[in-house]
Amino acid sequence: MTDYHPMWEDLGMDVETHDQLCAVLPQAFGDVYLSQENRPDAMAFWDMVVGEIHGIRPAELIEAQKNGQKVFGTFCVFVPDEVIIAANGIVTGLCGGSQFWVPAGEEVLPKNTCPLIKASVGARLGKTCPFFRIADMYVGETTCDGKKKAYEILAEDVPMHIMDLPQMKRECDYKKWEDEIRKFIKVVEDFTGNEITPEKLADAIKTVNAKRAAMKRVYECRKADKLPISGKDVLLMSQIAFFDDPKRCAEMCNKLADECEQRIADGVSVFPEGTKRIMITGTPMAIPNWKLHHIIETSGAAVVCEECCTGTRYFENMVDESGTTLDEQVTALSNRYMCNNCECFTPNPGRKEDILRLAKEYNVDGVIDAHLMFCNLYDTAGRGVASALADANIPCLTIETDYTDNDAEQLRTRVQAFIEMLD
Amino acid sequence: MTDYHPMWEDLGMDVETHDQLCAVLPQAFGDVYLSQENRPDAMAFWDMVVGEIHGIRPAELIEAQKNGQKVFGTFCVFVPDEVIIAANGIVTGLCGGSQFWVPAGEEVLPKNTCPLIKASVGARLGKTCPFFRIADMYVGETTCDGKKKAYEILAEDVPMHIMDLPQMKRECDYKKWEDEIRKFIKVVEDFTGNEITPEKLADAIKTVNAKRAAMKRVYECRKADKLPISGKDVLLMSQIAFFDDPKRCAEMCNKLADECEQRIADGVSVFPEGTKRIMITGTPMAIPNWKLHHIIETSGAAVVCEECCTGTRYFENMVDESGTTLDEQVTALSNRYMCNNCECFTPNPGRKEDILRLAKEYNVDGVIDAHLMFCNLYDTAGRGVASALADANIPCLTIETDYTDNDAEQLRTRVQAFIEMLD
Repeated sequence: MTDYHPMWEDLGMDVETHDQLCAVLPQAFGDVYLSQENRPDAMAFWDMVVGEIHGIRPAELIEAQKNGQKVFGTFCVFVPDEVIIAANGIVTGLCGGSQFWVPAGEEVLPKNTCPLIKASVGARLGKTCPFFRIADMYVGETTCDGKKKAYEILAEDVPMHIMDLPQMKRECDYKKWEDEIRKFIKVVEDFTGNEITPEKLADAIKTVNAKRAAMKRVYECRKADKLPISGKDVLLMSQIAFFDDPKRCAEMCNKLADECEQRIADGVSVFPEGTKRIMITGTPMAIPNWKLHHIIETSGAAVVCEECCTGTRYFENMVDESGTTLDEQVTALSNRYMCNNCECFTPNPGRKEDILRLAKEYNVDGVIDAHLMFCNLYDTAGRGVASALADANIPCLTIETDYTDNDAEQLRTRVQAFIEMLD
Repeated sequence: MTDYHPMWEDLGMDVETHDQLCAVLPQAFGDVYLSQENRPDAMAFWDMVVGEIHGIRPAELIEAQKNGQKVFGTFCVFVPDEVIIAANGIVTGLCGGSQFWVPAGEEVLPKNTCPLIKASVGARLGKTCPFFRIADMYVGETTCDGKKKAYEILAEDVPMHIMDLPQMKRECDYKKWEDEIRKFIKVVEDFTGNEITPEKLADAIKTVNAKRAAMKRVYECRKADKLPISGKDVLLMSQIAFFDDPKRCAEMCNKLADECEQRIADGVSVFPEGTKRIMITGTPMAIPNWKLHHIIETSGAAVVCEECCTGTRYFENMVDESGTTLDEQVTALSNRYMCNNCECFTPNPGRKEDILRLAKEYNVDGVIDAHLMFCNLYDTAGRGVASALADANIPCLTIETDYTDNDAEQLRTRVQAFIEMLD
């Protein structure tokens, strides 16, 4: 394995503290992932990526920067990657998924902030994540109170552009989001020095759509009676998709889909027959947050779908590729991104419709509505989700959790009781 | 005193539970307010209003409804009262300020929600507040995560209109707010059946400006060396202003200002010389939330200014009265309302500027930055506020509190230590 310490030092990282993270991650990954039996061979790619998660891709990004490319760090699936890619920029996700980063975040944020935000800010301020060091510009959005205010803190030492996401979904709001995308195009053009032409944007739209289509193929395989892949493995694929090159991501997801489709044809499954099928809905699960999936899949059930930003919301809905002018393309982008039924919107009936639709498509036995602690949006929406599922006679368990292991045993007990109840 | 029980029953209230609230309020008001010495005579009006707070004004509103007027309930100082008044509608505040209503709110909201939102929802669902029963339409806005989602719950059994407040303050955002005001005009016209003409809107703008000017006169008196009025009394004036008829409110505030100005001329003060002057900044204090003011003013200091929605943000900045067309008036309204430096905006440097300006204007010895629990916006902003005040050598105490008395003694200890430190 390459020694990335010189690179991390060049990035101005706190290498000593970062070594502590590097020391625990392989054990965690081994326990959660490598302990699984009969995994698809194609997962070797993602195992390799996680094995050197702060090495391989950061090194690629630094190389790209040397060639004049700019790296944009994002925190939300509303930011249109297509715009960045069209300007020869590179997108990297920045959401923090580890408790390791939370204490540094709590130095500047209230403890009553969701762990994802605390981890993200902590990873920046603690200088313990190369992606946060590499990104030339951060792109934020107005999706929740916590992020809005956290961006002000991050903006103190990194160039930050904020996109104002409308908080409703009327026709005028689709137009407002178009305006924000137009502003973003200008910002990205100025920052990269590259003009975004309709041709380049068309290519970028195709690239990202292809990535979505590839991810969707893998997800489609989870609709099979005999599940060819674990929920944990698909979650890992989705998590890494935020960091990887989109073309390679599509290639690897397609390879994985090929294998999963073959497994379905061959009747190969990673779960025993009759394993209960769980859909998770709620807040995102940023890498390396594998907590809930691990508990569910070591409690006798399988996760077959994630209705969340690290799940269906990331790849569902394609951008219309027929536009030939920037105006048409911007409209197409807005129309696609505004399909996302994040709870930041009020009202937000679309999410309940998505949950019921996906529960049927993936033939689920029960739904776990899981929120990161202090996410008021999803917590408050939980009542309506539970009620919609009750009306449809679909069992639902609502949980609130964070990145610590403190509640792991309690969660396991609740999840096991829920799964038993599904019999 | 009139027996309002028949009216409350007609309103479909839970009269028995409501009686419990009626039983405790006089004692609380007596302890906090009537215990003060040498209050301005003009405060008798507000004492009378509080004495029959769920009687006098509700009866007026019901009478107005019988005459065909519509009552609009609001939760935020961004909603332009002028539009409602121009359509011969009546505005009433709906924000809940008592722990009494919190448990009913917690039946449908996460406990990790700010007490103001829980109390507001609880007052509606528990049927224990006449104003919530009387309002024909509620008007919400997208100022925070908690309110956005709570409005969806309230909308289940009352007509609700939501205004989408931009989350930033660029030039385009002022235009977006204009569009929302235009939409609101249409909604109010349709709901009342009354056309909003430029003449009517001009009158309404003058009415609300006059109310603002009157409140400002009282506030100006607090800049005097010898304080003619307590902070508690001014807080009460501001709290009732959200519920009262705007012309009567202006009249009463002007009377109070007359008396305070005379007191200043006469050298009459309600505090001993050398009393430390405190400004409170932060989240709103809805009636009957007098907790922090009472602690401060019974700990040897005086509250001289509130930089919050139940303070300066409610009356500062006048609407330009020169517009003669609806377009000009809507622009003037947007320009005035967007001056409000609520922490819902990102970034929000204006609030820190306001705090520093007001600290100087009111000659304060220290600032208490007080947030309702689980208000992530103000909690996160607290770091920047403390830092701006430190840079200006103004002592600052940051506190987080709720509507219970559980932390009262701990708060008192902290406030006393802070005041002593100011010597």
